[in-house]
Amino acid sequence: MKYRKIPDEAVRRLPFYLRGLLTVWEQGRKSMSSRDLAGLLGFSHWQVRKDFSYFGSFGTPGKGYDTEKLIRQIRTILKLNVVRKAALVGVGNLGLAVLKYPGFRAYGFQIAAAFDNDRRKIGRKIGDITVEDVSRLRTLKKRGIDFGIITVPCEAAQRTFDALARAGVKGVLSFSPCQRTGLERAKVITIDIAMDLVRLPYYTPANRQKPKSGDQ
Amino acid sequence: MKYRKIPDEAVRRLPFYLRGLLTVWEQGRKSMSSRDLAGLLGFSHWQVRKDFSYFGSFGTPGKGYDTEKLIRQIRTILKLNVVRKAALVGVGNLGLAVLKYPGFRAYGFQIAAAFDNDRRKIGRKIGDITVEDVSRLRTLKKRGIDFGIITVPCEAAQRTFDALARAGVKGVLSFSPCQRTGLERAKVITIDIAMDLVRLPYYTPANRQKPKSGDQ
Repeated sequence: MKYRKIPDEAVRRLPFYLRGLLTVWEQGRKSMSSRDLAGLLGFSHWQVRKDFSYFGSFGTPGKGYDTEKLIRQIRTILKLNVVRKAALVGVGNLGLAVLKYPGFRAYGFQIAAAFDNDRRKIGRKIGDITVEDVSRLRTLKKRGIDFGIITVPCEAAQRTFDALARAGVKGVLSFSPCQRTGLERAKVITIDIAMDLVRLPYYTPANRQKPKSGDQ
Repeated sequence: MKYRKIPDEAVRRLPFYLRGLLTVWEQGRKSMSSRDLAGLLGFSHWQVRKDFSYFGSFGTPGKGYDTEKLIRQIRTILKLNVVRKAALVGVGNLGLAVLKYPGFRAYGFQIAAAFDNDRRKIGRKIGDITVEDVSRLRTLKKRGIDFGIITVPCEAAQRTFDALARAGVKGVLSFSPCQRTGLERAKVITIDIAMDLVRLPYYTPANRQKPKSGDQ
């Protein structure tokens, strides 16, 4: 099945729909209205309907969308209908937090390997994973690992990205805003937590300041 | 100065503009074209011009935008023209990574306090910050701390959010997708790293499968 191009902003919302649908499906709900799904996720329901129309899913009037069918459809669009494997590079605090994060498997994603250049960390076991030397990144392709996660300090981000690109990964999630985007070699999604934190004050009510006496 | 309402998607990009502008300003560039700024950030230049038009910044033909003026303007819109203070709750691996992240100060944001409910962590010093008992969250307002960062495990997210809301914070950045959004009490921005990771396969080239012999 072919889908027409979906705008990036809608692609960004697809994993959220998937998350919401998986939750209600686990609760045994076989169908769901766009209004309920929107309410669950904090989106507007016209947004949900518009996004779903990109891939030709329109629901049944009065019944809503078939939960299981919609899950399958979104998985197919996101290419999550097979297990995807990622390698994490940088086993510091952030790397450990990501490695221990339980939330990937539900989406068919598995962190299959972890790398560091610190001898004290290499060989350490974290859950099922044994930390390897970064020189072994070149084995990724052979092991079917197509994605990378960068959790190294800023100054190591560029060479880590380059090593992952050389290893043939197709996409990188980076927690460092310090590498060039390098779009030509692999898709990069960057999470810069500062960019989210600093948006918060915008949404606060204006601080009304009392005019000083004499001020207009 | 009053600005008309800016769409959320444009607000999401404002911190990126600020980051790019601060970088070029530090390099001594007094003006910058929308095309250069777009190139630096990986946005399209019509996007940049459209976003800037929301707050009435149009640049000078042939010269571009005045870097310093634009920085000041974006800071004002984002309400970052005064120092903003945040409290972090949950000093695990993720909490430590956020506490040690150097990237907030450039935007006028300061993590001013950290809290945990684990006796072994309370009293521990991380940089300038001493970890406090969560029962002391009620002191936030008095201390001018208006924002919260949630880095606790899933099962503790809701009560942490409730405690922050009771303490009077105006906005929360949560790394846990496990609390209700609670929009009525404080703005919440949630970072669910799974939501970014699982978008990656969408952008990979389709895996062309060789048709089996006999297949059409």
